[in-house]
Amino acid sequence: MTETATVDRVGLNELVAFIEAALCAAGLRASDSHIAAQLIAEADLWGADGHGVFRLASLIRRIRSGGINTHPNIRIDRERKAMAVLNADNGIGHIAMKRATEIAMEKAADCGVAWVGVHHSNHAGPAQLYARMALARNMIGLYIAVGSANHLPPWGGSEMLLSTNPIAISIPGHRRPPITLDMATTVAAYGKVKTAAQRGENMPEGWMITRDGLPLTDPRRANEGFLLPIGGPKGYGLSLVFGILAGTLNGAAFGSSVVDFNRDFKTVTNTGQLVLALDVAAFMDVDEFKSEVDAVWTEMKSSPLLPGFSEIRLPGEQAYRIMTERKEFGIPIADELRTSLGTIAAELSIPHLETS
Amino acid sequence: MTETATVDRVGLNELVAFIEAALCAAGLRASDSHIAAQLIAEADLWGADGHGVFRLASLIRRIRSGGINTHPNIRIDRERKAMAVLNADNGIGHIAMKRATEIAMEKAADCGVAWVGVHHSNHAGPAQLYARMALARNMIGLYIAVGSANHLPPWGGSEMLLSTNPIAISIPGHRRPPITLDMATTVAAYGKVKTAAQRGENMPEGWMITRDGLPLTDPRRANEGFLLPIGGPKGYGLSLVFGILAGTLNGAAFGSSVVDFNRDFKTVTNTGQLVLALDVAAFMDVDEFKSEVDAVWTEMKSSPLLPGFSEIRLPGEQAYRIMTERKEFGIPIADELRTSLGTIAAELSIPHLETS
Repeated sequence: MTETATVDRVGLNELVAFIEAALCAAGLRASDSHIAAQLIAEADLWGADGHGVFRLASLIRRIRSGGINTHPNIRIDRERKAMAVLNADNGIGHIAMKRATEIAMEKAADCGVAWVGVHHSNHAGPAQLYARMALARNMIGLYIAVGSANHLPPWGGSEMLLSTNPIAISIPGHRRPPITLDMATTVAAYGKVKTAAQRGENMPEGWMITRDGLPLTDPRRANEGFLLPIGGPKGYGLSLVFGILAGTLNGAAFGSSVVDFNRDFKTVTNTGQLVLALDVAAFMDVDEFKSEVDAVWTEMKSSPLLPGFSEIRLPGEQAYRIMTERKEFGIPIADELRTSLGTIAAELSIPHLETS
Repeated sequence: MTETATVDRVGLNELVAFIEAALCAAGLRASDSHIAAQLIAEADLWGADGHGVFRLASLIRRIRSGGINTHPNIRIDRERKAMAVLNADNGIGHIAMKRATEIAMEKAADCGVAWVGVHHSNHAGPAQLYARMALARNMIGLYIAVGSANHLPPWGGSEMLLSTNPIAISIPGHRRPPITLDMATTVAAYGKVKTAAQRGENMPEGWMITRDGLPLTDPRRANEGFLLPIGGPKGYGLSLVFGILAGTLNGAAFGSSVVDFNRDFKTVTNTGQLVLALDVAAFMDVDEFKSEVDAVWTEMKSSPLLPGFSEIRLPGEQAYRIMTERKEFGIPIADELRTSLGTIAAELSIPHLETS
């Protein structure tokens, strides 16, 4: 991907430092601010623009409104050998999910597989962040979340009772980049709608419909319609069962109890998420597996193309390219975003983010 | 669902007895024939018409061609506390996956969560069979399989390197039926295409495209095109990662190594599948959870309807209705299927299936 040359950029470290300063000034512990800032900036680094620093303004607003516990006591509620339920104590989601992923990996190193569910969490950024964490330990990571606002009805209905409930799965390769799928169960994630609105772009048909079932392409009118699930009733089914697994099973919000974090900055969201870690070494020789994943990559790439396509991409390939490019040239900061970050800096009396 | 009155029906027990006799006569152990027959008929009972007795003819043909080991030594290859890899020894898939699910439930009762992968298996019927098995133990079941024939290319390509790789997730309710999602990662499962062909019906647009990207609606021309994944690249991504998890990670076939079980009745397929069991009691009080699932059901049903819809359905609701109806009135056997079963009976010298 090449970004337009006119957009300002910022280095990863500078972005982390800015976010860290903002979270610290808003009242989070210094250690938590550092961890969360790294994860938020990492979202931008990998091209998940709708889930990174773009959301900092609303996160700060939530913290300042008392909607987030700045000093959470994150603790294990229930535990067995290969699972745990974590109480995130209404802390920022990134801190809770990093902890959950670490517990899952620790247990998976022993049991081969482990699953950790979380309740009383909050939005934790793009799903891929936590799935990717498993890679460093030669594990496969899987993450599912209840989205932080309902954007679609059950199939055939008109009341928005479901969210985009995303799934991410990350699989280590050897010489090739990891295969990382990160997808909403809707045709488009709501973050993409918000990004389109901020950029003044229209949405393609198929992302949303109005309450009368007509195509909706103006992202500024997003609250007049619904997101569409992938595959119609199938995407609805995935969103529903993912919501039960990540929400209901953990004692977290699902359905009408989901708090819309775009409108309500005060109510405890009780967000639910889950992470699953699989220790590759329990299944087969790690090097052999990684070479097999490389072979899958090569084989998919080798297929002849359909008319109209210029390449076949593996899940996570585009994100990997963006990450490589942004590591070298910096993370683009669109004009509206820069303005929003300037307001944050002024409100919190921290140094402004310097872009170039 | 109401079936057309002109179709003959058969009772569940009679269907089981017929399938059992056929498998036994084809050389399977008596105990395995009984278990497999129950699972195959159960597929029909729940309305998975493309995956039940419809496939008996090709299964018998595979057995008689030496493509299936009639006396497999199914054994654990690798094991940790919460996982196992099972070698199905090229036995019939139903036997292997029942065993895998039992091991997963046993381990989940201890560890809270367990995952069992299988290699050198064969087609095991609809995914929901094994996800549903967990319900009797108040567990949630999840099943993923590498489909037994490649029917779609990677997104943007034209070489069929991927299958419909389905997922099923079954969640116990209290007074309501369990929520059971069972879906191919393609818009339509290939079994549905075959059923349409057998019934002489056309497919709707959106199920398949030709190699030039044009809509394909004649199921008899299915081998001239591809199935379409749900949500375009998203369904491709799901099919790919499910294939790696159920195939590659277990040392089973994936990609070009998948044997097309519709054309080749002799080569060892090395089919891969996985099952995950979650012990609800590890997460929360079982009765409380089941009541919460009922509440989800009620809430989804309560949504106002979109124009053009007559009801909101939960995943598995239609299957539950079909099961209830077929338990009472019998399982419909279409004319072509009855002819095919008659041929089997004659070839194996077993009593014909009596329909009414």
